[in-house]
Formats: sequence, C-alpha cells, structure tokens
Amino acid sequence: MAGNTFGTLFRVTTFGESHGAGIGVVIDGCPAGLELAESDIQPDLDRRRPGQSEITTQRNEVDQVEILSGVFEGKTTGAPVAMWVKNKDQRSQDYDKIAGEFRASHADYTYQAKYGHRDPRGGGRSSARETAARVMAGSVAKKILKQAGVQVDAFVSQVGDIKLDKPLDKLEMSLREENPVRCPEPVAAQKMVALIEEVRDAGDTIGGCVTGWIRGCPVGLGEPVFDRLHADLGKAMLSINAVKGFDFGSGFEGIGMKGSEHNDEFFEKDGRVQTKTNYSGGIQGGISNGMDIYFRVAFKPVSTLLKEHKGRHDPCVLPRAVPVVEAMAALVLVDHWLGNRLSPL
Amino acid sequence: MAGNTFGTLFRVTTFGESHGAGIGVVIDGCPAGLELAESDIQPDLDRRRPGQSEITTQRNEVDQVEILSGVFEGKTTGAPVAMWVKNKDQRSQDYDKIAGEFRASHADYTYQAKYGHRDPRGGGRSSARETAARVMAGSVAKKILKQAGVQVDAFVSQVGDIKLDKPLDKLEMSLREENPVRCPEPVAAQKMVALIEEVRDAGDTIGGCVTGWIRGCPVGLGEPVFDRLHADLGKAMLSINAVKGFDFGSGFEGIGMKGSEHNDEFFEKDGRVQTKTNYSGGIQGGISNGMDIYFRVAFKPVSTLLKEHKGRHDPCVLPRAVPVVEAMAALVLVDHWLGNRLSPL
Amino acid sequence: MAGNTFGTLFRVTTFGESHGAGIGVVIDGCPAGLELAESDIQPDLDRRRPGQSEITTQRNEVDQVEILSGVFEGKTTGAPVAMWVKNKDQRSQDYDKIAGEFRASHADYTYQAKYGHRDPRGGGRSSARETAARVMAGSVAKKILKQAGVQVDAFVSQVGDIKLDKPLDKLEMSLREENPVRCPEPVAAQKMVALIEEVRDAGDTIGGCVTGWIRGCPVGLGEPVFDRLHADLGKAMLSINAVKGFDFGSGFEGIGMKGSEHNDEFFEKDGRVQTKTNYSGGIQGGISNGMDIYFRVAFKPVSTLLKEHKGRHDPCVLPRAVPVVEAMAALVLVDHWLGNRLSPL
Amino acid sequence: MAGNTFGTLFRVTTFGESHGAGIGVVIDGCPAGLELAESDIQPDLDRRRPGQSEITTQRNEVDQVEILSGVFEGKTTGAPVAMWVKNKDQRSQDYDKIAGEFRASHADYTYQAKYGHRDPRGGGRSSARETAARVMAGSVAKKILKQAGVQVDAFVSQVGDIKLDKPLDKLEMSLREENPVRCPEPVAAQKMVALIEEVRDAGDTIGGCVTGWIRGCPVGLGEPVFDRLHADLGKAMLSINAVKGFDFGSGFEGIGMKGSEHNDEFFEKDGRVQTKTNYSGGIQGGISNGMDIYFRVAFKPVSTLLKEHKGRHDPCVLPRAVPVVEAMAALVLVDHWLGNRLSPL
Repeated sequence: MAGNTFGTLFRVTTFGESHGAGIGVVIDGCPAGLELAESDIQPDLDRRRPGQSEITTQRNEVDQVEILSGVFEGKTTGAPVAMWVKNKDQRSQDYDKIAGEFRASHADYTYQAKYGHRDPRGGGRSSARETAARVMAGSVAKKILKQAGVQVDAFVSQVGDIKLDKPLDKLEMSLREENPVRCPEPVAAQKMVALIEEVRDAGDTIGGCVTGWIRGCPVGLGEPVFDRLHADLGKAMLSINAVKGFDFGSGFEGIGMKGSEHNDEFFEKDGRVQTKTNYSGGIQGGISNGMDIYFRVAFKPVSTLLKEHKGRHDPCVLPRAVPVVEAMAALVLVDHWLGNRLSPL
Repeated sequence: MAGNTFGTLFRVTTFGESHGAGIGVVIDGCPAGLELAESDIQPDLDRRRPGQSEITTQRNEVDQVEILSGVFEGKTTGAPVAMWVKNKDQRSQDYDKIAGEFRASHADYTYQAKYGHRDPRGGGRSSARETAARVMAGSVAKKILKQAGVQVDAFVSQVGDIKLDKPLDKLEMSLREENPVRCPEPVAAQKMVALIEEVRDAGDTIGGCVTGWIRGCPVGLGEPVFDRLHADLGKAMLSINAVKGFDFGSGFEGIGMKGSEHNDEFFEKDGRVQTKTNYSGGIQGGISNGMDIYFRVAFKPVSTLLKEHKGRHDPCVLPRAVPVVEAMAALVLVDHWLGNRLSPL
Repeated sequence: MAGNTFGTLFRVTTFGESHGAGIGVVIDGCPAGLELAESDIQPDLDRRRPGQSEITTQRNEVDQVEILSGVFEGKTTGAPVAMWVKNKDQRSQDYDKIAGEFRASHADYTYQAKYGHRDPRGGGRSSARETAARVMAGSVAKKILKQAGVQVDAFVSQVGDIKLDKPLDKLEMSLREENPVRCPEPVAAQKMVALIEEVRDAGDTIGGCVTGWIRGCPVGLGEPVFDRLHADLGKAMLSINAVKGFDFGSGFEGIGMKGSEHNDEFFEKDGRVQTKTNYSGGIQGGISNGMDIYFRVAFKPVSTLLKEHKGRHDPCVLPRAVPVVEAMAALVLVDHWLGNRLSPL
Repeated sequence: MAGNTFGTLFRVTTFGESHGAGIGVVIDGCPAGLELAESDIQPDLDRRRPGQSEITTQRNEVDQVEILSGVFEGKTTGAPVAMWVKNKDQRSQDYDKIAGEFRASHADYTYQAKYGHRDPRGGGRSSARETAARVMAGSVAKKILKQAGVQVDAFVSQVGDIKLDKPLDKLEMSLREENPVRCPEPVAAQKMVALIEEVRDAGDTIGGCVTGWIRGCPVGLGEPVFDRLHADLGKAMLSINAVKGFDFGSGFEGIGMKGSEHNDEFFEKDGRVQTKTNYSGGIQGGISNGMDIYFRVAFKPVSTLLKEHKGRHDPCVLPRAVPVVEAMAALVLVDHWLGNRLSPL
C-alpha cells in the first residue's frame, strides 16, 4: 500500500532520499538472460541529471550507476536486479531553514500531516531526485523492449504557449538531443529555449507538455478492464512529480469530434491489420492494436521559485523529464509485454 | 495480471459479460460494521441504466442488484461482499452478424488477436455494461466515505464544444439530476441537450467531459511515489470505456502559467491549514491537503454509430457515465482512506 | 489484505457463507482457449459434498455448479470465470442458539473479537462449506494441468493411529474411490473405516493425514526465495479448515537423518536428469526438479462434537478433504506453471 | 511473481547474492515514527553470522548493517527503509569448479533448468546468505511488535533424535543464548552440542527442529480464509532454506487425539477470554485468540557435506536459523498487526 513499488510482473521498488545515502531501485521479475551492464543505464541517467545545459539547474550532480545484484558475467540471472547511485552531497545545512515551514505547492505540509515526521533536506523522498531510480529501471525495460522491436521515445512538445505542431510521422527523433530542450523540431526548439531563458532570468518557472511515442508495439499488450494499457500509462505519467494531466490518441481535443469522424477504419496491408486514421492512439479496448501509441503529459510550472534559489532549480523541468517519461512508459510496456505471455493457453 | 481487480485494500473484482448470465462484483476488504442494503446501491444503478431519458439509448434494462454475501442482519461482516445483477436479455441473435467482423474503434480486433477466442455478443466483456459492477462497488465505497464526511460528486461539464464555465463553488449540485444531461447549470444543460438531440437525429455520437468533485476529503490520503492519489484517480478514470484523458487541478490549462502565479499559498483559518488558491486540485505531493479535489475526464464520441443501430446506443454516453466516474473516484478514495490507517505508528 | 484471494497469476477470489445465498468463486487470469463446462467441475464437487457415505455427515446437500461468466461456446475467453453453487438451505433457526456463545475451538470468538459482528449461521464464512469454492476453481486448474501432463492426486494416508505405509509407487490410485475413506490401499482403508465408525458411534471425531501426490510436473515451477513451490503448497494446505501441519519430501521424519544419507544424487536416464532417491520431494531450491512431488497434510479432529449434532457433522473430515487438497495443490501448480512462462527472455 | 517480496502491508523485498556486492532489503510500508538505528539490527545479524562458535562454520563474516534510507534523525519517515550488508569476500575462485556441476540436493540443477543462466559462486541467490536480508527486516518488525507488547522467540528444540521435552511455560528464554546450540534447556543443549560435534567430526550434517513461540499477541491477527495467521507463518517458515515441514499447536501429534480431548474450552479470567488448554496454538479460524502461539519448523540435514568443504559449512544450521525463524515470524505478525487496523469501520 505504501506505494513505492510499480508494476505487476516487472516489479520496480525504489528507495532513497534527496540528501540521504543514495537513490536505489530493485527490479523483481526481470527475466534471466538479458545482457546488462552499467553502460546500458548511464546514458539515460546522464540525460536526467542536473547541470546539463544552460536552461537546467546549475547544480552539478554526476549520478554514477552501480549494479548491486542480479547480473552474473554480464547477463541477468532472474534474481532481483538492484541498482543505485550514491548521493554526492549529503549536507543538509542549506535546507535547515525550511524544516519548519511549508513551502507553497510542495509536499511539505501533506507529508508532515500524514507521517508526523519527515526528512526536509531537499524535499527528502518527495524530491524529483527519486526519478533517478525510475530512469535506472526504465533503461533495463527499454533494453528488453528494444530486443522485442519496440521503440520508446519522448520529447518536449510544448513549453508555455509554444507548441510543436508537426505530425508525428514528420518528426526526426535524431534531432531531439541536439538542442537543450529536447524538442525534435529545431525551429520550435529555439523558441522554447528562448522562452525558458526569459522565464529563468525573471527567476520564475514555466510548464509544458512532453509527448510519448511508442513504435513497433506488438498487438495484444494491455488488459481489458482496469489494467488497460493506457490506464497504466496514465497512472505511470501522473506519478511523476509536477504532472497534472495525461491524454492519449485524440485526447482532450477529440471531444469536439463526431463519432462518424473519429472512427479508425480497419484495412489490411502487407498482411497486417492497420487503421486508416489513429485517433485511438494505438490502443483499443485497453489493448495495443499494433499502430503507434502516442500520449501527452502535462507538467505544471514547478513550485520552487528561482528568485529564492538562483541557479539551483530548473526554470523548466521538461527537458530533464523526457527520460523519466520514457522510463515510465517502458516500465508499463514491459510489464504488459510479459503479461501477454500468460494467455491464451 | 489479468486486470479485473481494482484497489489494494478495498479490492474490487468484477465479472460478467454483456449477454451472459449477469454482471457481478466481489469486494474483498470491505470493513465490518457497515450498514448495507440493496437500497443503498439501487439508486446509482438506476442512474447508470439505459433508457432513462430521451437522450440515452432506448433499450430498457432494469438492473436489479442482489447482495449475495458479506452482509448479515443488515451489516457487513468483514467477509467478501458479492453483488450482481442478472442480465434480462441473453439473446445473441442481433449480434451474430458481427461475430466475424471487426467494428471500427471497438475492441473486437484486439480481443481476437490477444485471446484467439472472444464473446462477440454485445461486446462481451468489453461492453460498457461491465460498469454496472463498478457502480455497485462504488455505492458501497460512497456510503463509507459519506460516514467519514467525504462527498463524491461528478457532473457533465462539457458536451462537444459546449462548456460549463462556472467555478465549482457557484454550482448547485441539487440541480444536476433535474435535467437529462446531468449538468448542474440549467442554461448550459439545455444547450447540451439540444446538441445531443441534434447529433442523435443525425445518427451520430458526440463526446465531452465529466468533472469529478470531492469535498470534505481529510488530509493525508494518497501515497508519495507511485500511488499518488491523483495517479490512482487517473488510472481509475482512464479505465472507463471511451475515456481518452484526465487532468486535475490546473491540468492542461495550467501549462501556460508561471510558477509565481501557480503557487497555492498556505494560510490558517479556523484552526485549519488551507490554501488561498487551489491550482493543486486538493492534492500535493500525491497526498490530499484537505482542499476540494477536482478533475476532468475526457470522453471520446463512442464508436457505435446510431445510423446502424437506431435507438440502441447512446448518442452521448456522458450522462450515464456520471455515476461511473463517481464510483471509480469513491473506490480510489476509500482505498486510500483505509491506507491512511497504516501509518504512522 | 482481507485474504479471500489466492494466487498471483491464476487469482482465485471466493465469497459466500454457509447459510447465505450461495458459495462462489471468481478466477481472474484463467487463460483463454480452455474448453470448460459445468461437467468438468461437478465430479469434484460431488466428492466434496456432505452425505456421500455412512462415514460422512448425513446432511444431504446437492451442490450444483453454475458457470456465470468467462466461457463462450464452451471455451474460456480470458475474462474472469465466475462460478457458484446456490445454497439449498438458508434457514437459520437451528443455529440461533449459538449466536451468543463461543463454541470451543471454533472461530466464533476470534471472529467476534476481530469484526465486532458475525454471521453465526452454520459458522458463516468460517464454515468448511467455503471449500466448495476452492474445489470449483481447483477443477479448472486441474484441467489445465492435465493438458500439460500434470496429474494431481490426494488420498487419505492416516486416520488416528492407522497409517498407510506403502511407498507411493506401489499405490493404485484407481482403488481410492472404491472405499468411503478415499485410501488407495484396501486393507488400510477397511481399518480406517472401522475406526471412523467407532468414533462416530461414540459421538466423537478423529483426525489424520491426507497425502498429496503430483506426477508429471515439469522442471522449473516455483520461485527461489519466498514463493518456493513448497512454501506456496504449505500455505495452501494450512489455509484449509482443521489443518495443523504440512511437510513434504522427507519432512519431519528426515530430521534424524544424516546429510550423507539424505542427499538425492543426480543421474541421467532416457535423456532426463533424475535423482536416485527423492527425499527432496520433487522440489529443490524451491523449484520443481521433475521428480514426483509429495507432501503430507495433518488434520486435527474437528471441533463440532457429534454428541450435540448427531449426524450433522463428519466424524472424520478427511475423505471429504481429499478433493480440497487436490484443488489447492492444483491452484498452486497452475499459478507457478503460468509463472514459468515469464523467464527467461 | 518472481517471489523476492514477502508481506502485504509491511512489504519486504530482498536482493543480493552470496558472492556479489552485498545482501540488501527494502521495507515498503514501515510506519513512520519508529525509532530505528543500526544498533537495533546488528545484534540479530550477529546471531545469524557464520563463525560464532565451534559448532558453526568457521568462515568469519562480520556482517555490518547500513541503513540506506527511510530514517531521518533516528526515526522512520514512512519512506522505504533500505538496509544492506556489504559482502567482504567477493572472490569466486573456490567455486569455479562447481560452475559446471549439479551438487546433490542443491538448487544448482533447478536454477540452471529454469533460468538457463545462474551465478554459481557460493550458491548465488540460493545461498542461505540471503537470510541476512530477512534478519535485518525482521529486526525492524520485532521492534514494532515489542512496542505493541508482542514477544517473538525461537529456539532449537530438536537435533537429530535429541528432543527438548519441557513444556513451554517451564522454559527460561534467558538461558538460550548461553549455549552455542540456542536451546533454552541446559541438559538437552549439552546433548545436542555433543551430537553436532560428533556429526561434524564425521564430516557430516544433521537436521532438527526450531520452535517458534509468540507471547503477548493481541486477539484478532490473521484473516479468515487464505491468509490465516498460521498459513502465513507456515509459508514464511517453509521459505527458509532447508526447511521441510511446519506444524502449530497440536500439529502432527494431534492426529491421534479425539475431538472431545482436543477442544480448547473457553473461560474468563481477569476480564480476558482464555482457553483451558491450547491445542489450537493460539490461533482459531486463522485468527489469533490471545493465547501463546507456538509452532515447529523441521530442518533437513543440509546438503553440503563437510567431507568436501571442511570447516566452511555448518554441521547443523539450526543455531544460526533461530534468528531467521524469529525474523520471518515477526514479518508475518507485523503484517497482520497492521492489517488488523483495517476492519471494522
């Protein structure tokens, strides 16, 4: 019930606080026989770490992953895969003054009310630093999925009012990592960066959207009733700090459509059942239909104001949230990919 | 993994198909000592049933709940509470012709691909009729919550482009059941009804939004990391047929705000910690903060076109979805309300 | 937590009380594509029902199974399989007098203390009648296992001091159903029956052992640490009414042996790895090794004294417990048989 | 499903291999507000460690616990409590020769068959070294229980044929740690030690029984059907390496009794409901009744023969298994102690 575990078959349990010994994760249910090394995980951790660019926080944490168990001679054994990153900075002085106050729109008040005792250093368990654990687990999931032909990507599609409006099939994912905002469309990226710089210079913060995009997903992932693929994706995304909304396929924008426009008609091509349009976002009846899966994740502007903590926080968390969105999507997919082995007889 | 169970402590398992023997639910974890009778459940079932008004399907199903276990002399015993409604109409002729085809934007194709064998009668397990089971369980949850001072409501806030724009605290919930669209604002309701009638007469369907609103929620419900209160609410809503999106508090609309505008400042009044604004939607760090919780649920226009099945389907499912949204919200809340008993020591 | 669900992948939830509407079960996770009819389940229910012979209770309950969901045209669809038997006798008069008293060694006191409210009619939820639900689910599990070549059997191996001492490979299972005590060895069976009759005539009760025997189990079922195959079998058996102990392989009797005697040496025969002896009981490191699995289940003499309730209770529950032991073993095995699909990659 | 997690509300997940980086555990669901320090855990780890006495293995591992998360200023915060011990000796040379062979009655063969890839160093994940993780978690559970007035003890009650025959209420637990075999009765202890020395000198191993004894358990722990308190205790014990059997209360020895002898009659004393005898072992209908809980755990002679590995293995694992039995019992009890908060309303 305490909610630090995610997934059913590929079960991920995270632990650690912002200013404790480190941030870790245990994966129970990682199948045996996967080649796995720290080098599979480090790149995503690097995409998540602070201090990457001028538009992120200037704190410089080098998060170095260590695999603690579950791997022997470079391959998983079926035993739990534990990984962690040690915290470099366990000092607590900077945060001492906040121990007694409730910062607006932070978790300080609710944690205090719920538990009666909390770790105030850097937000303790409520710090976005916890997402480092998710990214480690997600990299393992992504590696499994890649072997199964599934490509999981995320990118920044909106910052404040600046929207990326190109259709998915016109996007070039290789361009995404070439700008600090992780938007695969250079013109929009430039505008987003400018807006973030402006907000940063005003000591403020800004929100936006990350879009998730999954290609190559086989038909049949997801369960019909409560554990629909998109319901699990939604929960996964909403569990990320600062997320306020999720939609997939036609989403909130499909509300105004008529049923006769919205239906995705089936046709067969190259021996594969496909749909002409994809308002369904690749999921029908809670189960993947083989088309691209896509969804939007809405992030609020984060609460820690830079006015008070110059350079120590992100004016816009979205670029660093991209690997977290990918990680959580991968965890959901690998869970259902395993689940799909269980039926039929 | 098969996903027909919802909840951790108040565990709800549903069963049954559209044209099988009936639709049922087992609640495991319902605390002992709750006064419970069929009359607590029937009103919500009646709000969900087809044939209520001119703007819903004209099929006339009277769903009569039977409590099968877990209640002795009018009070729950702590044993599983099983309930069901028998299906009146188990004929399958009308649907025989669809057994061999995949209806656009339905679950036919994905079920067939996943399971290799499916019940095509009325959509079988994928039918929205399954929500009758959720409503039964939700009514039990709502009764527990009511005793704890928590009021769970939902209403239709948007149909197509017609939006209800009044702030929550100006709404009069008692007006909601006085119009067939379940919108608590008579003028907007009238416009919505007119639009639905227009769409119905064209043999088409239309989507919209249901808003959930929870008052009186105590501080402390929700868990910090994966099982955040809003993440569980999001999953719950996304598991309802035809739902494509969920947001809470400032949601997708908060994207354009600056952090300095968006922060909910604390103040104390009447010995209670409150916030001046409520962009957080009553949830901070995944945990309820005692303010009103509110969220939006986006429904697509349903896929079954009335052109083909005149009078047998809803031109707009939202009015009948209202009790389902309430039920799912209540299931999430009661689960976390129980969970809140587990910590601290 | 409330504990009415068993299993992880093949999840069985039971409901119902001795004198309520009926006893039911929902299986979530039954793979699609299994041919299933009431006639697959009824025979085991008949072996469990009261009134079968002179040495069981003389109450005559005909338990007639109904499949409520999850089966279409004779095959499972992957949706929850719900089944139940209606209770014939819902009268409660006979039990009214016990509502206010705590019967020795029954659950009356602990239920009352825990829940504050209980159904006293026939023991309510604590009645062994609840095992009818397990038998229904177990029959489905046995059918799946049979298709996988796994044979699950149980038999009475001890009543009071009378022990069946033949080694397993000398037993003829076909003889088991030819005597009312369900012991596959006619001479021992006769002695057991005589002892039970003697005890019955004295208005008393007697305990004993049921042995479980699983043949054809593939290598690899079970998980290494907490969910060892024998740990799950043990929990399954200990969850049956009146059970006080469980051991497998050499069990309590292996205590006196030396390690050098107890080791099961490997050899290869017919291309299959086997062990010369089988003190391990077919399970090593928590995982099946392909040899026969066998275990003992110790039943206490039941508490309801016949002196008070002549003919209404079993002097010895073991013959009727045989199908329950088989059912629970089958539930454990099918769960791990499904689990074995999840690893390796 | 992968089975490295134990418990429902106080969820314990273990990781690590015998010769990997270390052995660790994450507790999710530990209530906030518990005073906790390494010094609470170290004593039990010391009781478990190799090299304690002449009758245990002569390997000298000093297992030093480190708390990695979940504790701030000496008190738990409600966040996951992660703990681990680093392995001192990660060399693998000694075990290289066994990588290609299947040791009799070990997990080598079944792991290889199940996973296709395994860590052979010191048994990898199947090593009894994994129980260090259980002991760490168990110490936390014991501390919570102690504050609730529940005392959890275990002791060696049988080695080979040498049995401790004193009734529980005549035993003096304080004497238990004064002899290397952890039997609280000095005369029996001496005989047990002599037998173990004899077996050790012959390069062999011997089994026996550990008895668990729980005093001060409140009424109401346990759930009625599958999660009976004794069923969970049984599973917990059967999940320990080398365990072959479990019984509680009258256990296997109660088989020969008549119901009229076996019934525990209720009486009231000092305002508390008690039973005259305690054949039930403190549990009725799966729920604790406030009397002492006691149970036996049967250990086989371990398979690693000292002939081959002189001084590196225990001739009798029981003395070191005592803290493991206590730990597992404590995990079960604290889980149900928390669960007992959930009902009634």
